[in-house]
Amino acid sequence: MRCRLIPVARTSLVSLRRWGSVGSRQQITRRTASAETISALKELLGDRLSTSRSVLEQHGTDESYHDVTPPDAVAFVESTEEVTEVIKICAATRTPIIPFGAGTSIEGHISAVAGGVSVNLSGMNGILKLDRENMSVKVEAGVTREQLNADLRATGLMFPVDPGANATIGGMVATNASGTTTVKYGNMKTNALSLTAVMADGRIIKTGSKCVLYMEVLPETNLVINCDFAVYRARKSSAGYDLTRLLIGSEGTLAVVTEVELRLSGVPEAEKAMICSFDKMKDAIDTCTTVMQMGIPVARMEMMDENVVDAVNRYSNLNNSLRPSLIIEHHGSANELEQQSSVVQEIARDFGAMDIEVASTSEDRKRLWSGRHSVWHAVLNQVPGSRGFSADVAVPFSKLTEAVVETQQDLKTSGLFGTIVGHVGDGNFHVLIPFTDDNKEHLGRMKAFSHRLVKRALACGGTCTGEHGIGIGKMEYLPMEHGGAVDFMYTIKKALDPQDIMNPGKIFYANDRSN
Amino acid sequence: MRCRLIPVARTSLVSLRRWGSVGSRQQITRRTASAETISALKELLGDRLSTSRSVLEQHGTDESYHDVTPPDAVAFVESTEEVTEVIKICAATRTPIIPFGAGTSIEGHISAVAGGVSVNLSGMNGILKLDRENMSVKVEAGVTREQLNADLRATGLMFPVDPGANATIGGMVATNASGTTTVKYGNMKTNALSLTAVMADGRIIKTGSKCVLYMEVLPETNLVINCDFAVYRARKSSAGYDLTRLLIGSEGTLAVVTEVELRLSGVPEAEKAMICSFDKMKDAIDTCTTVMQMGIPVARMEMMDENVVDAVNRYSNLNNSLRPSLIIEHHGSANELEQQSSVVQEIARDFGAMDIEVASTSEDRKRLWSGRHSVWHAVLNQVPGSRGFSADVAVPFSKLTEAVVETQQDLKTSGLFGTIVGHVGDGNFHVLIPFTDDNKEHLGRMKAFSHRLVKRALACGGTCTGEHGIGIGKMEYLPMEHGGAVDFMYTIKKALDPQDIMNPGKIFYANDRSN
Repeated sequence: MRCRLIPVARTSLVSLRRWGSVGSRQQITRRTASAETISALKELLGDRLSTSRSVLEQHGTDESYHDVTPPDAVAFVESTEEVTEVIKICAATRTPIIPFGAGTSIEGHISAVAGGVSVNLSGMNGILKLDRENMSVKVEAGVTREQLNADLRATGLMFPVDPGANATIGGMVATNASGTTTVKYGNMKTNALSLTAVMADGRIIKTGSKCVLYMEVLPETNLVINCDFAVYRARKSSAGYDLTRLLIGSEGTLAVVTEVELRLSGVPEAEKAMICSFDKMKDAIDTCTTVMQMGIPVARMEMMDENVVDAVNRYSNLNNSLRPSLIIEHHGSANELEQQSSVVQEIARDFGAMDIEVASTSEDRKRLWSGRHSVWHAVLNQVPGSRGFSADVAVPFSKLTEAVVETQQDLKTSGLFGTIVGHVGDGNFHVLIPFTDDNKEHLGRMKAFSHRLVKRALACGGTCTGEHGIGIGKMEYLPMEHGGAVDFMYTIKKALDPQDIMNPGKIFYANDRSN
Repeated sequence: MRCRLIPVARTSLVSLRRWGSVGSRQQITRRTASAETISALKELLGDRLSTSRSVLEQHGTDESYHDVTPPDAVAFVESTEEVTEVIKICAATRTPIIPFGAGTSIEGHISAVAGGVSVNLSGMNGILKLDRENMSVKVEAGVTREQLNADLRATGLMFPVDPGANATIGGMVATNASGTTTVKYGNMKTNALSLTAVMADGRIIKTGSKCVLYMEVLPETNLVINCDFAVYRARKSSAGYDLTRLLIGSEGTLAVVTEVELRLSGVPEAEKAMICSFDKMKDAIDTCTTVMQMGIPVARMEMMDENVVDAVNRYSNLNNSLRPSLIIEHHGSANELEQQSSVVQEIARDFGAMDIEVASTSEDRKRLWSGRHSVWHAVLNQVPGSRGFSADVAVPFSKLTEAVVETQQDLKTSGLFGTIVGHVGDGNFHVLIPFTDDNKEHLGRMKAFSHRLVKRALACGGTCTGEHGIGIGKMEYLPMEHGGAVDFMYTIKKALDPQDIMNPGKIFYANDRSN
């Protein structure tokens, strides 16, 4: 079983034909919440259990292109113990449970495809314990990253993961979110130290190192029935299986995460950002890969194609050159930044960069990033009445230039208006395409393009999703990416959630799996 | 369920009494390999299946203080496919399988406590594919870290994880190994990108992002029966459950890992090391925690108590001051090192450091580290005929000083000769105690000390094992550290290895578990 490597240029797309029917979509059985279940939940939560039509519709809608499938009821929970009660009530009738945070998913994670109860955690938004000495904070899952960083402002500490959207920490755990700063600070697997989670049978666990202060066990079975913890934690451990990282990225299919302990980073002494534009996309990406391969520290390295620059210029009233561009930011001491920034500028010039503009004041830097952060709305603004489709792939560095250039070409050939942005320091890029539901022919072309893009990424050793997760949108690609390993992922799913009540119909096509 | 925090000083040890019988050792049933099993293996492997007494004894012996329990046979495998065949033969008769690499475990991982077949992977020592552009290398599990780094010498790249022992990469995956450089480069979870593993039913999986080039599926069930992969990989992914990190640290209890793709780091432009000694241990540790909390980059930060310095001086004929000491190393550009090193010296002086000696030449640096690297043998050399016991805990930074100082005091009170070394940049420290099997009273005091040490670490939010794993030595502490979460770890174990043939009797007391 030695590897045959197929160069990207030739992939599009030989040999992927044999995938056949693995992952083909099949109908999922609906398990509507019964009147008894809803009445039991009502008794538990009172007014915080809603079945109003507008609330249901809102909870079936995220920022994705997927169809709206509202749940049968929405439970606005306020504590971990309440989540336990909700799960126990639902488990008794095999009613699906769909965790809901800020609704910013773009792969349909919150869609109630099998019916059931949406568990809205946005009311669990307490910042429970800041530990300055160990640079960590424990928060409830409904805290948003903007809320957390606002709260940390006076401490000199920050939570660095920035997926763009103002997602909740719980949602970011669910999809293993990352974003513009991941090239320096990592993703959720790097920055979440431990989790409190409610499992499919209602039991509460706390993952990660901690001290058990108190534990009650049933004498015959040694079953733990009650315990209490101190949750600082050590910086490393080799004790047992890594449930923290198993739950991160499991998209609500194994447990409802209710509390998260996060690693914090110091606010950097200084920050320096620049934007530079290139004649050709290839030159921009080559600059990026060279910077990375030389190991020059960057805190952010974002690529925008000319369509994005145009959209952002119009939307935010900016005046950037209409060419493929990179925004590069460094964090560190003033001294280090000077050195790093000048090396990067030199590399960029070697690749023909024009208009290198360094944001020297904090206002300039804010304006620069406000453009990048507005991309989603700026692009949709180009097509009145549109919704947005966002593709998300990541590829190895050595293949990044080819992958992006081929994708540009594919957009052109397909006659699609699409815009490419990328966290190129991670080899991760998105294609944003505005669309309207009434134009079926356009929708078809868009989906075919997306399919080719994913297969192109996979064929060069990349992933079908760099940071958005599988949800309902990428299910057919999981076996292409992981092969037989998916069977063992599903074995774990079945073992931890034997009734398939935890966000069913996401990640796996259950009826594809054999064990 | 809010946390009550117990200060270290008061822990020793309240409220841990309620743990009762959770984790108390019980007899494990022996499942000796039958004559038929051994004959089937002999047919498969010929001379590479050994039942000679000396080979069996060697494979039941590691560097730990645990009793020798030899396996019934040793299979010297040469390929992933052979591992599959061995597992299938053993699975047919529920015969245990114990993976064996270099035998450097110090928690009894390779002990055949339930009988069975030791699978020796040291012959699988091929370096399969170096990918310079993406800075990764794919190796067979039997490659040792020294072999790998010797092979990489001409490339400008290195594999940074350094547990001291010349372990195999497979063994390092099994225990989530780390070591002196982890403070900068991370542990095996940071540095292993993907794994090839043989599961308990003999199926081969490849974890991590990759491209499936070819896949054959059974048309009715969609069961994957054959596939081939390109295993570069993307730097990040949100696709499915994280099997890579689930298998890392699972100590052979879920699968036999046969190939590992590793992230490589560039050999630093320059390296600078220094040793400094302090009047009191507290000052040494306070220096360390201050350096870390100020975010000054260090590549290594090792603590040695005066006993270690003494042992090392005698063993390696060195002349270091007989005081608690820190060795600190920086990696980077010459410019950066100068700056970092002088800030650290200033901090050390603030805490009363004496004899700051900077290793300016590469020879000086080598001599400095050769002392640190010889600690194990140097300490054993102090007590003729002794074996070594190594305790391994990690605690949060804010508790490190107290934990180390209390541990020194405890050694003294217990009348034990013990030496403390620590990867203090990670809050991780070891106590090495030479012992002889015939002195039962000393053994008893040593074990009681170790028990108090672990409880002290747990009580302040630390872990019972920073890097050595659970094996058979720390099983009783896993429920203390993880509470009810252990039940779900065991659920995963049962689901992936329903016959309990993969390294049974490690990590969990099976008969403690209820589900």
